[in-house]
Amino acid sequence: MAMSCDHPDLLPLEEALRRLWEALPAPATAEVRADRDDPAADRAAMDGVALRSADGRAPRRILGTLFAGEDPAAFRVATGTCVRIMTGAALPPGADAIVPVEQLSEAEGAALVQVDPKSGDHVRPRGEQARAGGLLLPAGAPLTAAAAGLRAQVGLPVAAPVRLRVDVASTGDELVADPAPHQIRDSNGPMLAALAHALGAEVRRRPSLPDDPEALAKALQAPDGAPILLTSGGVSMGEHDHLPSVLADLGATILFHRIRLKPGKPMLAALLGDRLVLGLPGNPVSAYLNAMLFLPVALARLQGLRPPDPWRTATLAARVKNKGDRPLLHPCRLRDGELHPLPSKGSGDLVTLAQADACAWIEPGGLEAGAKVRCLPVV
Amino acid sequence: MAMSCDHPDLLPLEEALRRLWEALPAPATAEVRADRDDPAADRAAMDGVALRSADGRAPRRILGTLFAGEDPAAFRVATGTCVRIMTGAALPPGADAIVPVEQLSEAEGAALVQVDPKSGDHVRPRGEQARAGGLLLPAGAPLTAAAAGLRAQVGLPVAAPVRLRVDVASTGDELVADPAPHQIRDSNGPMLAALAHALGAEVRRRPSLPDDPEALAKALQAPDGAPILLTSGGVSMGEHDHLPSVLADLGATILFHRIRLKPGKPMLAALLGDRLVLGLPGNPVSAYLNAMLFLPVALARLQGLRPPDPWRTATLAARVKNKGDRPLLHPCRLRDGELHPLPSKGSGDLVTLAQADACAWIEPGGLEAGAKVRCLPVV
Repeated sequence: MAMSCDHPDLLPLEEALRRLWEALPAPATAEVRADRDDPAADRAAMDGVALRSADGRAPRRILGTLFAGEDPAAFRVATGTCVRIMTGAALPPGADAIVPVEQLSEAEGAALVQVDPKSGDHVRPRGEQARAGGLLLPAGAPLTAAAAGLRAQVGLPVAAPVRLRVDVASTGDELVADPAPHQIRDSNGPMLAALAHALGAEVRRRPSLPDDPEALAKALQAPDGAPILLTSGGVSMGEHDHLPSVLADLGATILFHRIRLKPGKPMLAALLGDRLVLGLPGNPVSAYLNAMLFLPVALARLQGLRPPDPWRTATLAARVKNKGDRPLLHPCRLRDGELHPLPSKGSGDLVTLAQADACAWIEPGGLEAGAKVRCLPVV
Repeated sequence: MAMSCDHPDLLPLEEALRRLWEALPAPATAEVRADRDDPAADRAAMDGVALRSADGRAPRRILGTLFAGEDPAAFRVATGTCVRIMTGAALPPGADAIVPVEQLSEAEGAALVQVDPKSGDHVRPRGEQARAGGLLLPAGAPLTAAAAGLRAQVGLPVAAPVRLRVDVASTGDELVADPAPHQIRDSNGPMLAALAHALGAEVRRRPSLPDDPEALAKALQAPDGAPILLTSGGVSMGEHDHLPSVLADLGATILFHRIRLKPGKPMLAALLGDRLVLGLPGNPVSAYLNAMLFLPVALARLQGLRPPDPWRTATLAARVKNKGDRPLLHPCRLRDGELHPLPSKGSGDLVTLAQADACAWIEPGGLEAGAKVRCLPVV
């Protein structure tokens, strides 16, 4: 058998994403109804002249011009007259059709039409789109930019868009600014801050979390904490990995801990009160990829948007092995729709991740060149 | 012939996107080199004990524990001794291998290994990843979050991420807050502000631009203007569509005007000094879709990122006609990978856009049910 299965307890990624989505509250959104007929008046759908269709091709004296937004009551169209009209302008009284500029000529203040106009030609009739009171969007519809435009169109208030706040803190006493050979710098903090920013959050870097349960508990309960806390490290099985037990002691709801993904096995998500803690693994590639998978879901849900889909599809240009029992995210260069696997040294290999365009999803057993795979962009 | 071709001068979308990308300056980015060997010392790749492999399975007294970041010089491993070690910790002097916890037992302060250790087992050797001075990222590499992490790892400064500023202004005298039947509200302003915000920009709503060349010229040259100005309306062929000529009079470089896309034909992009003006069409669906296509390209380029790819692929659940000579973006609901076309009334139909999940790309001639199409998410 090519693959072992020594982690039957690990949660599949899809299930972890679903739990996160369902555990978070979406903002309540009311239905949107038309405040008036849409359009509110018969409108020109083209630039041209507005006229009485019953008078056929007879020449018509041009009374003037109506631009979008101008009051059409300034004119009255009768036999022998017409009004020059721009797209979006309301039809003047008496007119029932538009003849577009392409189908007429003008001479000595008169319009000569070259077609037989029919009533309603190039007119968007009042109420064509919606009747006053009609349902335009149901309650709970996603709070997209398009929906914001629609709300504005019907006169509902549109709140200025805000950014969700995300705190970013690394854990680990080994992180120092000027490291000895046995120490390292904190690369996760700046990386996760940049990633959360790129994903649309308002980010605040927090002091590193200490490898000490009491201090950790205090930091997790900081009164000025953001709705989302991203941590990295402290979620594995090591003696200094206190985050899971400290969260449990604080009464947090553990949404999941340990998922079926490489890298990312120790990934943790918990609700501490109404605050989401995404406990990312400490290795930088693992921290990056799990933030890229889970943070967009949390941000979208809390903002009332649709579940995000960060995946792309591409063709694998070379074989990638996966001897493990978890799906693997493998860094690749993307060239002309082909994923070229890079020689990654694993979850500590930030160099290769930074050189990659995307990470390919490789099921246990591996994949051959030519396989269609989904991949996660490196942003 | 099913399709006419009366607009041979219209620019294809791909060419318009390419021109925009190439006209904008990317920030200069220096190469990234390793400041020291990576890892800087031999490191444990697993939790276990660090020992001399030459002593085989002989029992060893445990001298103590090394956590990641602790100075390994506190210990010296010799025959008959070992050190408990956590992943990431530097190897103590004298040790040349790790035996993982899963392959040993402990009794009376001694470790009993159940395998024959070999030199280098579960050790990440110094310099495995990179040698001091080695090139990690070339100059001009994308300024991704992963690259920010790598810069931090090698001790380079990482600037706090900032958002690009985008001004949003609608044009048109017909836009009022409390409209008569011949007037409309400004839906584009709130919609484009929400969209630019969702795409990562710092957005400022500006007063509506007047239908007057002199006032328009003054507004375009506002000294406190953002690097990107999104306008909507004023780019068509109507008598009040002054934006193209005013920009030309001001000496702007017109990158393109009029593209081969429905909706979006009058789309304009221009550089006025070092300021980008994206002149979106005035119809709301057209304004939305063209902002969704062009703004991400401008934001990515100016921030030193890769060209964005907003497209998804899905299967068309029903036929969509396209009798025109331009590719059509048609609003659809997306359910289980299938695009269900909505009965859109065109570029003024914000209701249907707000109900849609994505807009499908329909080439001239139309597409049948079952076709694989690319689509643009509605966000």
